[in-house]
Amino acid sequence: MTKLKNDRFLRALLRQPVDVTPVWMMRQAGRYLPEYRETRKKAGSFMQLCTTPELACEVTLQPLRRFPLDAAILFSDILTIPDAMGLGLYFAEGEGPRFRCPVRNEDRIEALPVPDPEQDLRYVMDAVRLIRRELDGAVPLIGFSGSPWTLATYMVEGGSSKDFRIIKAMLYERPGLLDRLLDTVGQAVTLYLNAQIAAGAQAVMLFDTWGGALTPSDYCRFSLKPMERIIAGLSREHEGRPVPVILFTKNGGQWLEAMTDTGADALGLDWTTDLGDARRRVGDQVALQGNLDPSVLYASPPVIREQVGKVLASFGKGDGHVFNLGHGIHPEVDPDHAGAMIEAVHELSAAYHG
Amino acid sequence: MTKLKNDRFLRALLRQPVDVTPVWMMRQAGRYLPEYRETRKKAGSFMQLCTTPELACEVTLQPLRRFPLDAAILFSDILTIPDAMGLGLYFAEGEGPRFRCPVRNEDRIEALPVPDPEQDLRYVMDAVRLIRRELDGAVPLIGFSGSPWTLATYMVEGGSSKDFRIIKAMLYERPGLLDRLLDTVGQAVTLYLNAQIAAGAQAVMLFDTWGGALTPSDYCRFSLKPMERIIAGLSREHEGRPVPVILFTKNGGQWLEAMTDTGADALGLDWTTDLGDARRRVGDQVALQGNLDPSVLYASPPVIREQVGKVLASFGKGDGHVFNLGHGIHPEVDPDHAGAMIEAVHELSAAYHG
Repeated sequence: MTKLKNDRFLRALLRQPVDVTPVWMMRQAGRYLPEYRETRKKAGSFMQLCTTPELACEVTLQPLRRFPLDAAILFSDILTIPDAMGLGLYFAEGEGPRFRCPVRNEDRIEALPVPDPEQDLRYVMDAVRLIRRELDGAVPLIGFSGSPWTLATYMVEGGSSKDFRIIKAMLYERPGLLDRLLDTVGQAVTLYLNAQIAAGAQAVMLFDTWGGALTPSDYCRFSLKPMERIIAGLSREHEGRPVPVILFTKNGGQWLEAMTDTGADALGLDWTTDLGDARRRVGDQVALQGNLDPSVLYASPPVIREQVGKVLASFGKGDGHVFNLGHGIHPEVDPDHAGAMIEAVHELSAAYHG
Repeated sequence: MTKLKNDRFLRALLRQPVDVTPVWMMRQAGRYLPEYRETRKKAGSFMQLCTTPELACEVTLQPLRRFPLDAAILFSDILTIPDAMGLGLYFAEGEGPRFRCPVRNEDRIEALPVPDPEQDLRYVMDAVRLIRRELDGAVPLIGFSGSPWTLATYMVEGGSSKDFRIIKAMLYERPGLLDRLLDTVGQAVTLYLNAQIAAGAQAVMLFDTWGGALTPSDYCRFSLKPMERIIAGLSREHEGRPVPVILFTKNGGQWLEAMTDTGADALGLDWTTDLGDARRRVGDQVALQGNLDPSVLYASPPVIREQVGKVLASFGKGDGHVFNLGHGIHPEVDPDHAGAMIEAVHELSAAYHG
């Protein structure tokens, strides 16, 4: 394999020294970029964009042509696994993702197949291989999956939800049945991430978008434990390098200590937690990724620079920080503002290293 | 004034001994009740319902006729203050609250009037007086207001928002201007709550629905400090009784220590914080209110009873707990399920007192 030219991101995840703080953005390949919107239009549909490796590769690489980002992230949807399980993913205009066949009873849960990634999700693995080839060692490629709990919310509700009515009724009425659903999804996620790693993903991230909607004890049982089992089952080395794992629970700031014990290399943080406090809480067990408020990018470049400085200062001197937004970049953001953030991270962070 | 027949709620807020844990529900006067939907229909519009004291009184009392609740809460909207400031509140069908004239620049902010509650919000004060008369001392009446930050989000965005684009741009670009807006709104809230107290509200609650969307330092400056100034300006005694103040920041579980120092008598908690942990963190400085996941009410009565037991056990023995949901009751909940919760609180909590 080609030698990696920029390994800051992987080094920071392993809490090794770096020259400047590495930076990437959640949803960096996305709607805020005019070139993305053009490719999306040519693709015809969002699903077509996700399932065509050449197009997924193209949009993955677009932000890297504009900005000196320190990592690429596979462009894909978080709902590819339930789609491969036969739930029938589709996108209703302006409504977000929907499933034709939500999973709501015991029979359906028992009958759920665990997809074979190289067969049933081959388009994802082909995209990973193609992106790695195209990247040619410029920066590492991040693979990812939704967490079992997060995937299960869509699978049971049939789409996005505000109050998780159906799955929470299941959680409270039939917790054992939900355990079984999460176990099957967890097996699928483990295979899926391992296949991404085998295909060339150099780090992987678990997105637990909805874990923060649970009580502390339910978070532990229904979101954290399934993620911990996945992490225990991952190939943590490939091509002679460690493959770091990042765990991100949105609104999970109260549970960092528990997240630290999962075996993840790094925790993603949203902007409601102070990075310095988080660092004191997790000690030197994990690296931290985050956590600029994505809405800062609505402000002007000088203000963005100032706010980047505050985030860097809150982490302080030393290793183990990957700069990111606290959540995905908003689609309405001016790309130049994202550029100002990335430039500020590299310029201002030098003082915190070496 | 009539003697209060049931003062459990007020006693618990002041951490005084009670026989059983008092219970009420956020949005207990609301859409889950068929009698509410009927009154709402008769009123013609939601605004008509809010601005007609007889109708506001009627829906305030409806849940008390069904359930042995330990407190009534004034039925009103949180956006009455900005409406009285001239922003033109209206409700677009299925879209939530909107303002005809959002406040987005310095001139508009400088020109904002501070409403005189007995003049400009007389319908609210009349409702408070009428409800007190009708309650006839059965249970205490809670008055309330949105927090300055929460009100300001609607005033600046012009309605509900997902990412608070406009107000966050103001926060980051012109923090001093936002301070001024919050100061004016804070003055208005102080007068409004004091007028409610003078009219007969026996406890007041600040609803900080959107404080949890801020970074820790921005929460402190733009949401917590304005609330602290309001609390310092409130009439804390009326009719020879203390008037307790409850502070509730949704998703504020990371900041309980700071909230404890505001001078509030009690903190409201959503369900993402363990009550026992919260109690250890706040010590004996404040009472705690909460925090059953509102989605538990989608489950069956025996499961509801079990989950009520868990919340009571997490607080443990002793005084200073008001039972509530962690957020407003969902409109789709079966009223009998709310009844099962209330019954379980009174029955199961006796073991934790006396």
